[in-house]
Amino acid sequence: MNIEVCYSPQSYPLFHNPNAIVVVIDVLRATSAITTAFFHGVSKMIPVATIEEAQKYKENGFLVAAERNGELVEGFDLGNSPFGYMSAKVKGKTIAITTTNGTQAIEVARQAHKVVIGSFLNLDTVVAYLRKEKKDVLFLCAGWKNKFNLEDTLFAGAAAEDLVYKYDFNCSCDSTLAAIELYKNAKLDIYEFLSNSSHRNRLAKLDLERDIKYCLEANQCPVLPILEGKFLVKGA
Amino acid sequence: MNIEVCYSPQSYPLFHNPNAIVVVIDVLRATSAITTAFFHGVSKMIPVATIEEAQKYKENGFLVAAERNGELVEGFDLGNSPFGYMSAKVKGKTIAITTTNGTQAIEVARQAHKVVIGSFLNLDTVVAYLRKEKKDVLFLCAGWKNKFNLEDTLFAGAAAEDLVYKYDFNCSCDSTLAAIELYKNAKLDIYEFLSNSSHRNRLAKLDLERDIKYCLEANQCPVLPILEGKFLVKGA
Repeated sequence: MNIEVCYSPQSYPLFHNPNAIVVVIDVLRATSAITTAFFHGVSKMIPVATIEEAQKYKENGFLVAAERNGELVEGFDLGNSPFGYMSAKVKGKTIAITTTNGTQAIEVARQAHKVVIGSFLNLDTVVAYLRKEKKDVLFLCAGWKNKFNLEDTLFAGAAAEDLVYKYDFNCSCDSTLAAIELYKNAKLDIYEFLSNSSHRNRLAKLDLERDIKYCLEANQCPVLPILEGKFLVKGA
Repeated sequence: MNIEVCYSPQSYPLFHNPNAIVVVIDVLRATSAITTAFFHGVSKMIPVATIEEAQKYKENGFLVAAERNGELVEGFDLGNSPFGYMSAKVKGKTIAITTTNGTQAIEVARQAHKVVIGSFLNLDTVVAYLRKEKKDVLFLCAGWKNKFNLEDTLFAGAAAEDLVYKYDFNCSCDSTLAAIELYKNAKLDIYEFLSNSSHRNRLAKLDLERDIKYCLEANQCPVLPILEGKFLVKGA
């Protein structure tokens, strides 16, 4: 079982492997919000790439989440903050969602064998699933507008470190080696490690420090969102 | 003066900055070979993207270097090994060159304000030039077939660390932060740090350990190749 890490949705075609499980990562904040939503009882989610598609779901009576550049898009019900997905009003609901980076990453990976959602909030659940499935793994970082970002890479490094050092996974890919190395440097205090990172600073300007701290806490939401057709559902 | 690091020629359009100096990096081995060539008296080099273009220069009587997948392409005079550029037969000559990754990276950066060639062999010369010019800097890693690689990233980290910590350059780009962090982990023994890296192993299989060790030795060739029109020439 090989592990690769792809730092940008733009590069996905270079990494496409029809046998791999793709773990989509957008730590700040789409995949953290999705993980939180399922942990708090959301029934299904429908990731869509564009505001226009999201608008159609809205017109058809769905709850709809839409975020661009860190902020809730006017006229929609929810943004990208995990705290928005903890209330009783989302329980049992199906929510359509579009975000700046995360849902774009899900979109490019649709052709994969299997797509699951990863975040620090469900780190051990993701690792346990990958161990059980015994397939090649591709960690797909959502990044920021197709550029590399640190926080998604650190999650890939955290999961890859476990899979390589504790279990039987191979790593012959430089981006995986780099992710593991960066995670080693970061793991004692990820929040501090990210203090100069671009997206932590972007969100801090929007007064979202509470979101950042929450998204970096490992294993608060032991659920595994999996893509089935157009829906994300809660995996076993 | 801002620093950014682009990990793949494919991503260059996301980073294009008309005011930036682009440092093209292909440590194993194109930019190391080019740096070595100018240090040993080559007059000019003509980087070309394809074997077909290289063939035309050959037919017109030029010395021509062509490498694909680590090996010299049959029928050409030189490959990608820096040791090929140390002999008297290249002195004063103009050499056309095409390589798997390095010359592709030069190709995508042609629209930049200025393009220079970086390798560990001319690390301090590159840094001194960037300090003197006081412009934005984009380190463009050639990578491997548009994927991230470690050795090019380490060079970017080495140069960026100097520019950020010793001089007045800014870094608000996650890929630069990651490159600096990786270089910190690697710098005591870069050869050892790369022991699991994909390209070191690819070249080791081709019995090129001597090339690898040479390419990682800092400041053996204090020259600065600069792109001027279609030619690489020796900068001041």
